Amino acid sequence: MNALLFDMDGVLYEGERPIAGAVDSIAWCRAQAIPHLFLTNTTSRSRQALVDKLAILGLNVSAAEILSPPVAARSWLQQNISGPVALFVRKQTASEFNGLEIATPEATDVAAVVLGDLGEEWSFARYNRAFRLLMDNPDAVLIALGMTRFWRAEDGLRLDAGPFVRGLEYATGREAVVMGKPAVPFFKSALALLDARADETLMIGDDIRGDIGGAQQAGIKAVLVRSGKFRPADLEQGITPFALLDSVASLPAWWHQQGW
Amino acid sequence: MNALLFDMDGVLYEGERPIAGAVDSIAWCRAQAIPHLFLTNTTSRSRQALVDKLAILGLNVSAAEILSPPVAARSWLQQNISGPVALFVRKQTASEFNGLEIATPEATDVAAVVLGDLGEEWSFARYNRAFRLLMDNPDAVLIALGMTRFWRAEDGLRLDAGPFVRGLEYATGREAVVMGKPAVPFFKSALALLDARADETLMIGDDIRGDIGGAQQAGIKAVLVRSGKFRPADLEQGITPFALLDSVASLPAWWHQQGW
Repeated sequence: MNALLFDMDGVLYEGERPIAGAVDSIAWCRAQAIPHLFLTNTTSRSRQALVDKLAILGLNVSAAEILSPPVAARSWLQQNISGPVALFVRKQTASEFNGLEIATPEATDVAAVVLGDLGEEWSFARYNRAFRLLMDNPDAVLIALGMTRFWRAEDGLRLDAGPFVRGLEYATGREAVVMGKPAVPFFKSALALLDARADETLMIGDDIRGDIGGAQQAGIKAVLVRSGKFRPADLEQGITPFALLDSVASLPAWWHQQGW
Repeated sequence: MNALLFDMDGVLYEGERPIAGAVDSIAWCRAQAIPHLFLTNTTSRSRQALVDKLAILGLNVSAAEILSPPVAARSWLQQNISGPVALFVRKQTASEFNGLEIATPEATDVAAVVLGDLGEEWSFARYNRAFRLLMDNPDAVLIALGMTRFWRAEDGLRLDAGPFVRGLEYATGREAVVMGKPAVPFFKSALALLDARADETLMIGDDIRGDIGGAQQAGIKAVLVRSGKFRPADLEQGITPFALLDSVASLPAWWHQQGW
């Protein structure tokens, strides 16, 4: 093993408190100079906002160490696409795509359509424009910044990006490239950024499907921790983690035990 | 055989001209007093508008003989649901639901959500309201007035109801009851309206999937006509019609040949 991928929520912290030992495990990872990334499905806040939140919890993580769906999408686009990219994302997310050729609002021929959670900013005209751009160019790729179904806002449930992506997939007959766990392209982006091979990379997560199942689909071994959203019934879902640890605190000792 | 279901476009007429012999076949059906319905997936115009169009072509069909997705939905709702129904349909379609208890715009507890093609009338708030109504009542039924992907407007392609239905299905984890060919509930509504059994009803259509495949899924025998959108390759799609006729003009003679 030569690289590590960490889930954040439930592995490094739970709600507003850090997991005991998480600070030391991150420090160990850095001291060992193991290439690593922190993976999150969050698109509603920028990486810097995440960095600030973690700092308050005593977790010293830099923006460059965080892989979010927009960052993975940019990396994927840089490697796979040439041509203008149409963004259907919030303003704070758009900044993550700096450096790419962004399509003008009048463009009719784009190489990719990137779709995130737009909430109230969705109108029929805007949704239909994403549809037409895909229909106008049969080679245009639909990139989804996650497939989250909905989230709980103060005034009630709100549709996230997933339903809009699924609608466009149905309308166009095309399958989205999904960035965000458990989608394989997201894990592949992580490997590309670390320049690591799947079989020498280990994922640490608390979500049996999103973290463990997703990583395994990408050929990455994955360790489940008993913190965060872990429930014993998770082990009866037909997904077998490579190992089960009490928390990320046990990682350094267990890693050395493996002889890595 | 004791009942007949006719597709309209491609069976009775092609574009702006009636199929030769269609007028006589309809007259024969009436003279024989065979219970029958004309099935259409159209939701953008009312039944009366269809009646007027057919009259211009010399086809004498009454509104009561036409089964469209809104009419099938009302029939289905009357038989399966008690409680208020929330409509997400255009104004001209809403009138087809007269007689049902329609939910107020403030209602939070509805028995069913009916979703049609709203076009520019869609906003995030309106789409999210349909979602919340479904989430607020786990027993609420999602009724789709067809699953059409898109249609060609003067200024270009436009998303129809299908993508919005598919998005809500994904968001809620619930499956829509689809009214419109080839969905089985649509054919079942036709049988209910005619008070006919599936195995004594015959469908006539030009669409191998929408008409023939759909009817067969509902246990109804179906005859393919070589008019309208029929192409010889349709017979290589894995769907075998009960019989193949040159057009609806051949129906009366063929029907009597069967000894019905």
